[in-house]
Amino acid sequence: MVKKGNKNEGKISEIKEIRKIDLSIDELFDGIKSKDKMSLGKAITLVESNNILHQKMAQDLIERCLSLQPSSARIGITGVPGVGKSTFIETLGKNLTAKGKSVAVLAVDPTSIQNKGSILGDKTRMQKLASDPEAFIRPSPAGESLGGVAQKTREAIVICEAAGYDFILVETVGVGQSEVAVHGMVDFFLVLKLSGAGDELQGIKRGILEMADTIVINKADGENQPAAKLAVKEFTRALHLYPPKKNGWTPKVLACSAIENSGVEEVWETINSYIASQKKSGFLKKLRQEQNKYWLLQTIENRLINDFYQNEMVKKELEEKIDSVTKGNTSPFKAAEELLRLVKKN
Amino acid sequence: MVKKGNKNEGKISEIKEIRKIDLSIDELFDGIKSKDKMSLGKAITLVESNNILHQKMAQDLIERCLSLQPSSARIGITGVPGVGKSTFIETLGKNLTAKGKSVAVLAVDPTSIQNKGSILGDKTRMQKLASDPEAFIRPSPAGESLGGVAQKTREAIVICEAAGYDFILVETVGVGQSEVAVHGMVDFFLVLKLSGAGDELQGIKRGILEMADTIVINKADGENQPAAKLAVKEFTRALHLYPPKKNGWTPKVLACSAIENSGVEEVWETINSYIASQKKSGFLKKLRQEQNKYWLLQTIENRLINDFYQNEMVKKELEEKIDSVTKGNTSPFKAAEELLRLVKKN
Repeated sequence: MVKKGNKNEGKISEIKEIRKIDLSIDELFDGIKSKDKMSLGKAITLVESNNILHQKMAQDLIERCLSLQPSSARIGITGVPGVGKSTFIETLGKNLTAKGKSVAVLAVDPTSIQNKGSILGDKTRMQKLASDPEAFIRPSPAGESLGGVAQKTREAIVICEAAGYDFILVETVGVGQSEVAVHGMVDFFLVLKLSGAGDELQGIKRGILEMADTIVINKADGENQPAAKLAVKEFTRALHLYPPKKNGWTPKVLACSAIENSGVEEVWETINSYIASQKKSGFLKKLRQEQNKYWLLQTIENRLINDFYQNEMVKKELEEKIDSVTKGNTSPFKAAEELLRLVKKN
Repeated sequence: MVKKGNKNEGKISEIKEIRKIDLSIDELFDGIKSKDKMSLGKAITLVESNNILHQKMAQDLIERCLSLQPSSARIGITGVPGVGKSTFIETLGKNLTAKGKSVAVLAVDPTSIQNKGSILGDKTRMQKLASDPEAFIRPSPAGESLGGVAQKTREAIVICEAAGYDFILVETVGVGQSEVAVHGMVDFFLVLKLSGAGDELQGIKRGILEMADTIVINKADGENQPAAKLAVKEFTRALHLYPPKKNGWTPKVLACSAIENSGVEEVWETINSYIASQKKSGFLKKLRQEQNKYWLLQTIENRLINDFYQNEMVKKELEEKIDSVTKGNTSPFKAAEELLRLVKKN
């Protein structure tokens, strides 16, 4: 669903954005290559802008970044609110930087589309990781559609990779299509769960087990430990019911306590052994190729829609058509046809 | 995600479709108005066709249907697989036809996009209702995107309403965005649930409680009854935590056994009292106006995407671009740009 906001609001935020991007593409690209966080931030702001000039610049920048052919590992992390995603990401991230690895954290948050908030927007989250020089954290972009938000995150990944981050962690909340989108942009998909009352499987969404490369039962500490053990058993059994994955990987089920930093090391080892085996077998390359096809089609579709709403004629007429349709004077199908014809004529 | 199938496959099914629609718009419209099921079926096939000529005809037909301004009640029904949706719809439908009401059953099934199957495709389902002269059942259309499938169902609703069906039941599986789409095309949204081990709320998806006008705990029979009662209590308590809806409606929680036809009558009464109160207060009209706006934007976006892929130049070049992107010779963003420029030039 596309929601059109107040016109002036859009204008003002656009001007603010333009002011923020005071560097040329050359300067931005140089900044990215030297892992300068300020340049990184500005580059992502450029990518997130809906301004047509910005989009052209962004495309140029993205092409340059892609030409570097870097080799980050992209990890998707999902889980419902309350499962401890922030703590998990912070602990995993700190463990990685302690090993001399650099980490970028990005997010796709469909709830930000409606609420203009975002899962990583809260500055108090991941404070330890945020202040780590080897970590870069970027909140989920606000946007008007999941497709747009996901695409911007996809392009932010390209930028962070060009900057040479070893690990890109892409966070999403466990709702709807956002998981599919994130699954479509990462090498490894991790599902965080809590142990429950022994019927974990009833609460899990269809499709999520097929997507998961590893399920991690978080908060496996104190008196939760027996329940966590049980959950590990139950999920392992459930995963065995599925046919083996084409890439030869058997999804693992692990338990950890992010807050106590226990078991997180095993999660990291699992990710590592997955990446190594997939690189060796060539499946990682294959996966990314498939993802590229997906992003080709996604990019086209997002651009078609965005260009339409940015069209001057549409900007003039849309409000009136919406009004007419809302009042029942025109059918939505007829009004759509009229607007589409208007654009075609030009 | 858009998946392009085999080219000839598309051609053959298109020819089959064209053969099926051997009636003029006048004949189809007359057939619809006299509630002729064969005409109804053909009209919906027309709407579902991706052929450009068919789409023009379909639009004409839809406009005529909309001009009738009929007043069906539109009921959305969702629930995860295994919750007993078919049995519930069949029982509710049979109860309605026994009261002299007519019922049309449609579906939005996102899984049909990937599997080319459909939740209503299985002919053995709802046999009693299917053979009822006052009922019309149509499987979920196959399609290449949820947006497209949902839009086709939306138009099928318009056709069934023009035919004078008193109730349009729109079924969807309890996964992802399809529920949002169905919620956006109905007057009343019903969520089917099973009673579980006392932690029903953990398994329920964020957002679904906000969307539900009524939650119905199904399979409340035999030894399930105490658990069902408990579930009713728990959901009622959960619903009370939400602020009251703007339309003044307090969502209800009911239990029923569709297979034993107990409690289904109460569900029907609830729907009825909702529709009556919403008509009286004017909120039903308001809701449909809002939905019209949503469908205006949806129609535009689907058409933009569909027109693009139907473009002859795109048809020629897309495969090659996909190949180049898959092999890593072109970035997805650059390839998208090239294809978009191709269309703009023409």
